Amino acid sequence: MSTFEISVRFFLQLATLLAACRVVGALAQRLGQPQVVGEMIAGVLLGPSVFGAFCPEVLAWLFPRETRPVFFAVSQLGLALYMFLVGLSFRREHFRSELSGAAAVSLAGMAVPFALGALLSLALHGRSGFFAPTASHLEAALFLGASMCITAFPMLARILVERGLASSKLGTLALAAGAMDDVAAWCLLAIVLSTFSDDASTAALALGGGAAYAAVVLVLGTPLFRRLGERAQRAGELTQGLFGITLMLVMLGSWFTDAVGIYAVFGAFLMGIAMPRGFFAEQLRKQLEPLVVVLLLPLFFTWSGLNTRLDLLVSPELWLIALAVLAVAIAGKGLACFAAARWRGISLRESVAIGALMNARGLMELILLNIGRERGLIGPELFSVLVLMAVITTLMATPIFERALGKGYARSE
Amino acid sequence: MSTFEISVRFFLQLATLLAACRVVGALAQRLGQPQVVGEMIAGVLLGPSVFGAFCPEVLAWLFPRETRPVFFAVSQLGLALYMFLVGLSFRREHFRSELSGAAAVSLAGMAVPFALGALLSLALHGRSGFFAPTASHLEAALFLGASMCITAFPMLARILVERGLASSKLGTLALAAGAMDDVAAWCLLAIVLSTFSDDASTAALALGGGAAYAAVVLVLGTPLFRRLGERAQRAGELTQGLFGITLMLVMLGSWFTDAVGIYAVFGAFLMGIAMPRGFFAEQLRKQLEPLVVVLLLPLFFTWSGLNTRLDLLVSPELWLIALAVLAVAIAGKGLACFAAARWRGISLRESVAIGALMNARGLMELILLNIGRERGLIGPELFSVLVLMAVITTLMATPIFERALGKGYARSE
Repeated sequence: MSTFEISVRFFLQLATLLAACRVVGALAQRLGQPQVVGEMIAGVLLGPSVFGAFCPEVLAWLFPRETRPVFFAVSQLGLALYMFLVGLSFRREHFRSELSGAAAVSLAGMAVPFALGALLSLALHGRSGFFAPTASHLEAALFLGASMCITAFPMLARILVERGLASSKLGTLALAAGAMDDVAAWCLLAIVLSTFSDDASTAALALGGGAAYAAVVLVLGTPLFRRLGERAQRAGELTQGLFGITLMLVMLGSWFTDAVGIYAVFGAFLMGIAMPRGFFAEQLRKQLEPLVVVLLLPLFFTWSGLNTRLDLLVSPELWLIALAVLAVAIAGKGLACFAAARWRGISLRESVAIGALMNARGLMELILLNIGRERGLIGPELFSVLVLMAVITTLMATPIFERALGKGYARSE
Repeated sequence: MSTFEISVRFFLQLATLLAACRVVGALAQRLGQPQVVGEMIAGVLLGPSVFGAFCPEVLAWLFPRETRPVFFAVSQLGLALYMFLVGLSFRREHFRSELSGAAAVSLAGMAVPFALGALLSLALHGRSGFFAPTASHLEAALFLGASMCITAFPMLARILVERGLASSKLGTLALAAGAMDDVAAWCLLAIVLSTFSDDASTAALALGGGAAYAAVVLVLGTPLFRRLGERAQRAGELTQGLFGITLMLVMLGSWFTDAVGIYAVFGAFLMGIAMPRGFFAEQLRKQLEPLVVVLLLPLFFTWSGLNTRLDLLVSPELWLIALAVLAVAIAGKGLACFAAARWRGISLRESVAIGALMNARGLMELILLNIGRERGLIGPELFSVLVLMAVITTLMATPIFERALGKGYARSE
């Protein structure tokens, strides 16, 4: 395919995705699910598992191999811009207050699922299509452990914000615990990939580069970026020049963190945290959010779905494995966080709500799985099993959360 | 390069482009040039002519061949969304009123440059690097003729809107003449490509498909799309659902017109014309414009610059040809339109302003040249000569326009 033909097909892919995401998203919302869940399912439906099972030629024509780099790169662009927006709405105070309460939930939600995941990996390690033949027991244990203790941090934040609970006691605790779990899982992934590529420099680059990046952006960047906010305030608007400089910083941060191996998700998120708040952040959000959330980000969710092959789960044995993975995931993360919250004296209802939120894997799990797949660490079968787990734990979150708290919660708090 | 590596490099490309476009754009604005001109020049500076001449390895590393489809596809996405915005601000009344006055300028601005361009092609046809060896005299004449009579319609519109002249007599005339010239040039291009690919069905598909598309979108679409506007009004906002549906329509139109061969530029532009005005258009513009204009669209302008090789213009003979092409372009378009305007009784100052605006090739010329290059009709030497012509005629426009009218014009009118 010529460069021109690829660009033409890309328009049709976008039109198809937008249509599918709208239809499935609207259905999802009627069932009390967020739009994000609809997009994940739209991807699975459009992918080889459903649409491709009936019309493989049409799927192959609509998403030919040559267009994959375009689709993936744009999905990454959307993801980075979205994580920047999440960082922009992050409140650093959450980390400071409520830290000790959150630590219990966070630790439980890390140690238990990691241990269970690592144990499970012993049983799965030898199977074809699960781990790369070159992956050691340790690497398999680290990866599966990390994939179990991931929390859908952006989704958790979004649900709390939508319910008006972001600055409540419950919200603060969940946000802090979710953020800590997330950072830990990414560090784990860097170590896995480092040992997998048999190169200590990979881990050193990731951890060192990541720490350096965080220090530069948060310590040196924050006061510098404040000037962007002041200029916007003086101009009375976020001019194209200021908007361009900000986007340039996001792209630069995304590139750097991708290049050192801790991923654009993190680089863009930290850049968002370092940006000035108030008028500047508000304008930035207004200018970025619509196109990013409606056009670019859905590419990422559907990309994961498009690469999920539920048709690989043909044997009863594989379904059993999927069920086992799901049980371990829920017990390790949801139940452990619930128990930790109860132990810290949090009410039954709130503890259930916290467990449900922490249990949702959503976005972050898909990022981690895609990295594992892109790097060749895990095979298509395990990828599909874990995507299924991610989708189901994500689907469970909102209904359990809403039912546990009840409609009147936000006001009574 | 792996899919992942391509996406990482793409972040760095975007960061580089954003930085270059900001710096060169700011310089351009100090010299009284629009941002668009800065972006075109930024591309040329980043490309093989300047940056690549000093650091060819860095350029090859930053823009490797494997990333070209990504860069091109995203630039086309930005272009389509931008043309949709231009269509959205287009006022159909302009076509109806002032039609006869505009017709003279439009005809002069089409017939004279086309005839001169066709004549010039006779001299250039045999040269290597100018036209494909398989291109006939007729095809060469049609293509060079078409490339001479292009007008930078979106740029012309933007300059008039910025000066507050869009609904003045002068603005109406220039907009109508510019639009007519543009449509004619695209039809010409479809015919050239059709004869070049030796397939009458190409032209039939382009003209037939284009006419069918225009009819469906303008006649059937307009009343249907009105409902989108009504829903937005009722909701009091452009919801994500409505925004998604609108974007889906733009992508679908872009794909269809690309596929039949009259190009996404046109499909997206017509889709914009068919959309409801008022609250809906206003909200749409707010949600689309910032990211499209600052992040996506610059890719298109710099793509052209990146593919321009002024270093090919090494021989004095080639520079002479470039000068001849430039003289023919200015005489054929700028002077002819000026003369036609004078003949219709328009004041000297206004006639000069009209000539300057019509003479700017900008965006549209680059689109046409890129298509010719992608399809293999023209070689790198002619491409570079014509990009140079496009850049210079575009650079001339704003200063001459401003000087001809003077500062107080908008108010005295």
